[in-house]
Amino acid sequence: MSEIRRLIDANRDYVDEHLGITDAEPGRHLAVVTCMDARIDVFAALGLDLGDAHVIRNAGGRVTEDVLRSLALSSHTLGVTSVVVMQHTRCGLAGVSNAELEEATGTGIEFFVIDDHVETLSADLQRIRDTPYLSLLHEVAGFVHDIDTGQITEVIEA
Amino acid sequence: MSEIRRLIDANRDYVDEHLGITDAEPGRHLAVVTCMDARIDVFAALGLDLGDAHVIRNAGGRVTEDVLRSLALSSHTLGVTSVVVMQHTRCGLAGVSNAELEEATGTGIEFFVIDDHVETLSADLQRIRDTPYLSLLHEVAGFVHDIDTGQITEVIEA
Repeated sequence: MSEIRRLIDANRDYVDEHLGITDAEPGRHLAVVTCMDARIDVFAALGLDLGDAHVIRNAGGRVTEDVLRSLALSSHTLGVTSVVVMQHTRCGLAGVSNAELEEATGTGIEFFVIDDHVETLSADLQRIRDTPYLSLLHEVAGFVHDIDTGQITEVIEA
Repeated sequence: MSEIRRLIDANRDYVDEHLGITDAEPGRHLAVVTCMDARIDVFAALGLDLGDAHVIRNAGGRVTEDVLRSLALSSHTLGVTSVVVMQHTRCGLAGVSNAELEEATGTGIEFFVIDDHVETLSADLQRIRDTPYLSLLHEVAGFVHDIDTGQITEVIEA
């Protein structure tokens, strides 16, 4: 069976247990930016329930232009005032160079590699702070999530 | 207590129940692209377990340049061969114009609004298909998730 077919079949069971949350506004006025990594359970790791937070994910959990776009909507149209950027140990973007990834993927794109978690997070939080249209975000923090223990190991506040 | 502090406190409990998955490669060789909307439970809606899939999320679940970057890594360095783009009913990007969002947010950015779910998904899947460095993605599909019932209502295959 194809992966797509398996997803559709699984969805049939979900319909019965589905929690119909009507309010689009995140209950905790929170957005979480994190990596796409398959090993991260965002809700469990941060004690969140469905409906609590916007969840924005990409390779690395980096604050790219697309993340700024998403946060503009979160904060201006859906009441979000806190944002946490959570990067993690043993990330596929850490400890590699952009040149190595260009070669591995056959592309000439910018991958936003991570040399040092604290430095990268600080720069990413600064990017949020430096974006004039994100001034409604009153609380901005960075976490490093240890993929082996599940623990948040570093906290940077901006 | 601040939202950031609540997340850190909740993480303490998570450490005890944490499933240490060591393999970074998604077990089902799958990536899911979906919206940041707080009402979407990606794992439950699609019957996924931790470790099964990369999860990429942004405002709308649109295939932006940042999503192409993430999928380049998924497919070339982490064995992903199937991708599903899941957009949803009652999305904050549907039924509004870019001009309205520009005014609401005080920005001049492109928001990638959704006029029609099937047309938008078709265009987004085509963008993946038209990206030469994403040729390792053998299975590409689009879903519309009904936020009220939990059901996948439309399936587009590309």
